[in-house]
Amino acid sequence: MKSVITGGAGYIGSTLADALQARGDDVHIIDNFSTGREEFLTGSNGTMHRIDLTDESAKLEPVFEGAGAIYHLAANADVRFGWNDTRRDLQQNVVATLRVAEAAAAANVPDVVFSSTGSVYGEAAQIPTPEDAAFPDQTSLYGASKAAAEAYLSAFATNGSFRATVLRFVSVLGPRYTHGHVIDFIRQLTKDPDHLTVLGNGTQRKSYMHIDDCIRGVINLRAPGEGTPFGVFNLGVPDICTVRDSIGWITERMGLSPTITFGTEDRGWVGDNPFILLDVAKAKEHGWQAEHGIRESVEATVDWILENQWVLQAHDVRAT
Amino acid sequence: MKSVITGGAGYIGSTLADALQARGDDVHIIDNFSTGREEFLTGSNGTMHRIDLTDESAKLEPVFEGAGAIYHLAANADVRFGWNDTRRDLQQNVVATLRVAEAAAAANVPDVVFSSTGSVYGEAAQIPTPEDAAFPDQTSLYGASKAAAEAYLSAFATNGSFRATVLRFVSVLGPRYTHGHVIDFIRQLTKDPDHLTVLGNGTQRKSYMHIDDCIRGVINLRAPGEGTPFGVFNLGVPDICTVRDSIGWITERMGLSPTITFGTEDRGWVGDNPFILLDVAKAKEHGWQAEHGIRESVEATVDWILENQWVLQAHDVRAT
Repeated sequence: MKSVITGGAGYIGSTLADALQARGDDVHIIDNFSTGREEFLTGSNGTMHRIDLTDESAKLEPVFEGAGAIYHLAANADVRFGWNDTRRDLQQNVVATLRVAEAAAAANVPDVVFSSTGSVYGEAAQIPTPEDAAFPDQTSLYGASKAAAEAYLSAFATNGSFRATVLRFVSVLGPRYTHGHVIDFIRQLTKDPDHLTVLGNGTQRKSYMHIDDCIRGVINLRAPGEGTPFGVFNLGVPDICTVRDSIGWITERMGLSPTITFGTEDRGWVGDNPFILLDVAKAKEHGWQAEHGIRESVEATVDWILENQWVLQAHDVRAT
Repeated sequence: MKSVITGGAGYIGSTLADALQARGDDVHIIDNFSTGREEFLTGSNGTMHRIDLTDESAKLEPVFEGAGAIYHLAANADVRFGWNDTRRDLQQNVVATLRVAEAAAAANVPDVVFSSTGSVYGEAAQIPTPEDAAFPDQTSLYGASKAAAEAYLSAFATNGSFRATVLRFVSVLGPRYTHGHVIDFIRQLTKDPDHLTVLGNGTQRKSYMHIDDCIRGVINLRAPGEGTPFGVFNLGVPDICTVRDSIGWITERMGLSPTITFGTEDRGWVGDNPFILLDVAKAKEHGWQAEHGIRESVEATVDWILENQWVLQAHDVRAT
């Protein structure tokens, strides 16, 4: 089957490319390499299309033609700096998704799979948060843009354009994870093994999923289809950790005992959700559940970064 | 107080302008006259700014400066033809709302009031539908675009930019109503008093609110503010009618007994919601409820159109 992955040179996208390739798919990758990395494309990842989804002159339909599924993973995933440029999430998450939907409809692609986020629940009133939670108040432009993109895919699916499956992830960890708090801490500790500075007071509770669990969900979970062409699944672990837990695991893995300076806030920045814990019962009913715990995912990330220290040199200010 | 109304030359906007003027506000109207009408501006409606909100070169901040409230009513309200141009709702409803939010934040306007729609609930599972209904599946690009605009306003409000009040309307009837089924039927019956052709089989259930009730809600309902800077209220009547009911009231009011040809579908077009009935308990708790019944609203519309037959000449293919 021909499969197209937008954002296919990114963290999740390139890992998905490897998995689809391994099962024999004809994989086509679309990426603009704004955050995707050549290093993640091992040469066996399929056909590369260097396209910026927000470039209206770049035609997607020829790439989508004949595909059995579009995995739309390309996005601006920077939750933190949305307010510096209020149009970036709109362009990269909403307009790009609408362009993908238009082209998938025009090319008669039967399936569109979309990587959304637990951030669409904003400050959820219900925790763990199920897929049919109340219409949320958004707390970030990132969450707003992902909710908007979901709404558009839903309208296309209901209109009969294609089956759309929306997967709302918690943060994903594991090999190739090149942004967020784990690499930030390792970068600090590589420069100075004795000191670590933490945004927020370290009590922020987080839920992390292993990349391998994520990929299994992306490949296997689908909206029921016929009569129900739109479906949403939460993907996460039924567990949380605090930033302090994670720091303990990271420093232990590195064999370090640094002095740690915490901030005073219970969140790292305005719009940072202090607590995302998703109800994953629906995915479980559909045969999926996480096989890796949070500590295991953090340690796998540490191991990979220490084995691939080139990623520490790369400029990446994002944190989730 | 300086009040700015986007879409202020439109049906709801111009009526709101009259009401705010009557209470002494310094009213500023923004309209691009794509569907707004000069005829609705009686000369006493305040300062006119001929601006297209989607025109990035048109600065909104100078108009917003010093305003106590922005009433953002400008929108593409054409639910029916969204699929002919998938970008129209995006530009006119999402991008325009983002521009209004950016300018309101920059000008330190304390209040933004947004006219949303019951269509954001898609095919609601819960009827009457409350504000905190489950995250809906969208059935139209219009609904998707309004849901997206709400999400953006929510993010700005949570970020502390302003208090945002979202009002989800059922369809509004009464004086100055120049599109939708009432004018469509009157137009047909003016040409041929003996025949009427109806989209759908006439069993579609609808809920309509009188413009005067709508305006009272727009002026008086607000999110609680401090600590809760984002609030949503449904505005509607606790009642429904069928299209057949409405036809009976219209023809009786016109003194006609036409032969009626119905379609076979239970909805007028793909994406037409067969049934919107909003739970209005929350607005009632905040002191608002509809004072006019549906029949009264339909008849008021008929009377106004018959007294203002110029509107029958205007080209308007929209129907809600």
